Order: sequence, then structure tokens, then C-alpha cells
Amino acid sequence: MTLRPKQAPIVAALPVTVPFVGPEAQQRASGRTFRARIGANESSFGPAPSVIRKMQEVAADQWMYCDPDNFDLKAALAAHLGVGFDNVVVGEGIDGLLNLAVRIFVAPGQAVVTSLGAYPTFNFHVDGFGGRLVKVAYENDRESLDGLLAAVRRDNAAMVYLSNPDNPMGTWWEADDVSRFADALPETTLFVLDEAYGETGPDSALPPISVDRPNVIRMRTFSKAYGLAGLRCGYAVGETQVIADFEKVRNHYGVSRMAQIAGEAALADQAWLAEVKAKVAAGRRRIAAIARDNGLSPIESATNFVTIDCGGDGAFALRVMQNLLARDVFIRKPMVPVLDRCIRVSVGLDPELDIFAEELPRALAGARG
Amino acid sequence: MTLRPKQAPIVAALPVTVPFVGPEAQQRASGRTFRARIGANESSFGPAPSVIRKMQEVAADQWMYCDPDNFDLKAALAAHLGVGFDNVVVGEGIDGLLNLAVRIFVAPGQAVVTSLGAYPTFNFHVDGFGGRLVKVAYENDRESLDGLLAAVRRDNAAMVYLSNPDNPMGTWWEADDVSRFADALPETTLFVLDEAYGETGPDSALPPISVDRPNVIRMRTFSKAYGLAGLRCGYAVGETQVIADFEKVRNHYGVSRMAQIAGEAALADQAWLAEVKAKVAAGRRRIAAIARDNGLSPIESATNFVTIDCGGDGAFALRVMQNLLARDVFIRKPMVPVLDRCIRVSVGLDPELDIFAEELPRALAGARG
Repeated sequence: MTLRPKQAPIVAALPVTVPFVGPEAQQRASGRTFRARIGANESSFGPAPSVIRKMQEVAADQWMYCDPDNFDLKAALAAHLGVGFDNVVVGEGIDGLLNLAVRIFVAPGQAVVTSLGAYPTFNFHVDGFGGRLVKVAYENDRESLDGLLAAVRRDNAAMVYLSNPDNPMGTWWEADDVSRFADALPETTLFVLDEAYGETGPDSALPPISVDRPNVIRMRTFSKAYGLAGLRCGYAVGETQVIADFEKVRNHYGVSRMAQIAGEAALADQAWLAEVKAKVAAGRRRIAAIARDNGLSPIESATNFVTIDCGGDGAFALRVMQNLLARDVFIRKPMVPVLDRCIRVSVGLDPELDIFAEELPRALAGARG
Repeated sequence: MTLRPKQAPIVAALPVTVPFVGPEAQQRASGRTFRARIGANESSFGPAPSVIRKMQEVAADQWMYCDPDNFDLKAALAAHLGVGFDNVVVGEGIDGLLNLAVRIFVAPGQAVVTSLGAYPTFNFHVDGFGGRLVKVAYENDRESLDGLLAAVRRDNAAMVYLSNPDNPMGTWWEADDVSRFADALPETTLFVLDEAYGETGPDSALPPISVDRPNVIRMRTFSKAYGLAGLRCGYAVGETQVIADFEKVRNHYGVSRMAQIAGEAALADQAWLAEVKAKVAAGRRRIAAIARDNGLSPIESATNFVTIDCGGDGAFALRVMQNLLARDVFIRKPMVPVLDRCIRVSVGLDPELDIFAEELPRALAGARG
């Protein structure tokens, strides 16, 4: 038998199965193209025309490495948020920043608290660095602040994760509740507040940005309302020393030149953001109306998607989703009981929601039949 | 005193100083713009016009997430290299793949062998995951295959790194020598063969691609000859099980949609690559001639840069570089004795090399004066 290089122990213990199945993989499997791409919470409205023009202008310049300091984008973010330059770190999407946060602040074996059914990529990174996941059930389709806090205390957790507004349910806590939660946490527990959907919800859900607390780090992205998911650009805001720790381990050439330039241009076009927010709100109302027209219960959402209670069990909702997929409508659904009674539909363009409105009754009939 | 979240032990032990200073940072410090950007081994010839057009076409599509499987690019790479789809993994440049390779195959405390003065980003990642770096001196301005092998055996190394062709010296080993080195390694030592400059050297420096050996992984990039450094896209080729290990920990949404599309387009335009290779060879000859015109000794190079022995000590070469920087000519230099007697000049456009030819005599005079 051939000997071979050994994996490091933490990696050796990981499964090879990978939870990431993109719509492209589904299309390759079916041999068909989705008629409506409303499953990945992307922004069908796209990036701003000003951003598209900028990307086209700088395409020929991509022979140059990116600025490893992300200087221009960081400076623009700091000014936009009213924080210092050293309170911001830019990464390859929130995914990349979660990877680093876990690597920096979770030692192997330490407890990390999240909600059961919340963002799987966070869990992927916690597993990947040997953290011990502690999962707290949702309460009334919201992440349970009391439950998370109790778990943090009980397990002396190094880190706790909350997405607000939430994915996959679309629900949210008001800023006061989030602030009270942060105040109640042990000072040694890092609170990772994922605000990927921060721009699409009510402003009242966003606590004021404070960078004084070493145990709170907030993450935002250009992937959602700004319409740049494909470019991989997110940022974290926190206390300077916490941010400095990212410098020790991040891939300094990880965020592409294109992403840095497009991110800066996107931030400068707040008129487009306002337009997208209005379209997202209208799209949510329309998805909710379609759901109600079919006798289903939409859950009120602060995100760019609406999660719909199909009124049955997980198996029923799964059949609904599968029927929609078979009709080339790309949506997703939560998989953990009791959230799994729902399907999740992203706000898309009107023609995509027309298709959803047309196909949902058939998918439901098929699931019932 | 406020308590705060604790860093994981490996990260806590790392310094905050960061070895990555881009030309943008130097320009910000000087308040001026470089007249010649010939220091980062980028391809001043840019990406192919066909690739630029493709990037412009797909700019508006960047609201969609990237394909987490990198399917189309991987399939194109596999066909191009004559290997299986499962023998390829795509990452955020070779930097991103080195990070993963170390994370997967180096347990904290294990020895990792590289050359003293070789690629600092590799060292950054080894430190970052708690590996123990063992550095072997260059011999006659080449990485020492015998020295690396002896160190691997002595320290029972988990990994050994070789760049061929080499950065920062531009030298190379022929394929037979590299193959003999691979054959002589313990089967448990992973050989990371960095071929970032593989396209610009003689074909005779590239061993045939074999994906049978679990202990050899080769890395290549679109950053150099293909002119896409800003997009961050590299790939590794190896045995299927080794490649599968990357799936366990990589950021599946790390390589941007733009990079995947541009990489595929770049690979399809081999005519452009041939043109760039010819231009790089001509540029090397010109840099060598400029060096000789000034009484200096260029080192024969298989890369897109030429390293020039300035004929003095490290302090002298440092003054030469600083004088060029002060004249807004961006170059770099090796910093480790005895390599530090040299400066390193990337092949640039003719007008950039005109500026270099004009300024080098002044920089030398200043350094001597």
C-alpha cells in the first residue's frame, strides 16, 4: 500500500460531503435552464448601472494585483459608516470573514452557539476549525435571543452567531432587543452579528454602529441589496484590536481588484440602493399576496425573500419545492423541523414572479395529489 | 480592565506586522504615481482582448453568485491539461490554495521545508497554521534540490515547497531534476510545486502532468502570463483524494463569478498566450541588455521578470532600488543574503522599459556617490 501525506487531525475528522449545491449544479443535472432564479436571495435587479459601467471600464486593468490594503474601499466604508479606517476589514464575502473570525477566535473544542437551521456556511467553518457547535431552536420562527444567551452561558461559548434580519426565515429583532442581547453576553464571548440583509429591512432593526466593544463584530455585504453576489465582497466592522487580528491571518490578496472597485462604486450610488429597497419591498408584498391567494401563510420578512408556511409538514413543503424545481422555478427551503414546513422564495423580477404565481398552484396540487 | 474574546493559541502567537506592501501603498505614501509599474511581476500586456470583452459582457450578470463547483472552469482546465475533472481544484489565486494546502496537510508543530528567501506568502500561511518553517539556503541562485531533500529527511517534514521557475531569482530546474526530486521524497511528504511562472519558461522545465502520486500537488495561476492578477484565480492539480480534501475546507463561494468566466475565456485564447510569451521573452532580453549596458549582471530567467546582480552588497542594491522608487520606477528586490545583492525587474511595456533604461544609470550613480 502506498503511503500518503496525512491530513491534519481537525481536517481528517471532517466529512467529505459538501452542503453547497448551486443552481448551476441543478441545471447541469436537469439539462434545463431555470425560468425563474428566485432561490439564492440574489438581487435580480442587478448592480447599479453606474457600477456596471465602472466594471466595464476597469476590465482591461485586471492585470494589476489588487491593493492588499483594500484602501479605497475601506476608506469609503469607514466614511459611510462613520467609523475609523481601522474599524473595518474587507473579505471575500461574509463567508470569507466568518472563516477568519472562527479561525481567530475559536480554539479547537470550544463551544460556538448558533441557531438550529441558521446559516450553514457558518457551521461549515466552525466544524472546519474544530469548534463545537451548540444549536439553539428557533422560537416562533425567530432566532431565540434568550435561548442563545442561555446556551452561551451554559457552555461558556467563545462565539455566538446571530443573523438579523434572519435567513432562512426572514424574521428580525428590533435594535433594542439586539443591543440588550449584546449587553447581556459575557465580555469574553464574541458576538458575530451577520447583517447581510441589513439594507432590506427596517432601519429600526439596526443598532447604532458602536466600535467600542471588543466582543461585537458586525458583518455586511455587497452581495444582497447592492447586487454584487458574484464578485465576493463583504466587510466586518468592529473594535480596532479585533479588526487588527484579521490582518494576522487573512489572505491579503483575496479580494479582487474588480470587487474593490465595484464595491466602492456601489457604495457611492445610494440612489440605486434606495430604488432596489423599494423594489424589494414591493416584491415581498407580491410574493406574500401570491402565497395568500393559494391559501398559504407568508411570514413577514425584512430580507429580500419571503418564507412561506405551506401549512403542512416538512415532507409536504419538500414536495412543493421539488414540483417547482421540476417546473424550472428555482427556490429553496429550510430543512430543519419545524422551519421545514416552509419554502423560501427570493424577490425576483416581475416576469419571474409571474412564473411563480402561475406554477405555485400546480406545485401545490401535485404535492397534495 | 475590560475582558475580551481570546484569540485561539496559534493566532495569539502570531505577530501583527504584515509583509505585504503593494505599489498602491507606496504611491499613497509618496503622493505620486509610478511612471513604470515593473515590480510585482504582473503582465503589463494585460489579459487578451477576447477576455476583456467577455468581462465587459458579463459585468451586468454579477448579481448572481458564482458556481460553487467552478464547474465550467474546472472542466476546461481538465481538458486543457489532460487530467480528470476531479484532479483539479480552483482557488483565490495560488495564495488561497497555499493557505488551504497548509491547513489540510500541516498539523501544528510539524516541519515545513522551503527555501530561505522564497515566496513569503507561503511562509505566512505556514506560520498562520502553526507549522514550523525550515529554510534552506539557495545554491548559485537556484533553490537547492539537494538541500531541500536533506532538510525534508532530517526534519521528517510534512510538506516541501518549490517554485519552478523560481521567484525571486527567475532561475529554474529542468523537468528531469524536478522529477528526480519528487521521486526521492518520502511518500508522506507533500511536495507543493508552485508553477506560477510555468507558462513563461521553457517547456523543458515542466514535468509531465501525473496525477497518480498522492504526494505531489502542482499550482498554477491566471495571474501571470494570462494577465488576470487582479481577479484572483489559480488552480491546483493533483491526485483525486488530495484534491477531494480541499472540498472539506475551502470557501466554496470564494472564487468570483467574474474570475471563473474570465479564466475560462483566457484558457480558450492560446493565441494571446503565445503572443505574451514572445513579448515576455523579448522583454527579458531587453532588461538583460539594459543591465549589461550599465555594467551589471542579469541572471538568466524563465519568468516574466529579470533579477539583476548589482555587483555589490545588499545595502548597495537596496540604494539602487530606493533611488529607482524615488524616481517613480516601481521595482522590488530580494532581501535575504546573498540574494539581496540583486534587484528584480518585471517585464513591462516598452515605454516602461525606456524609463527604466533612462533611470537606472542615475540610480546607480546615486547609489555609488
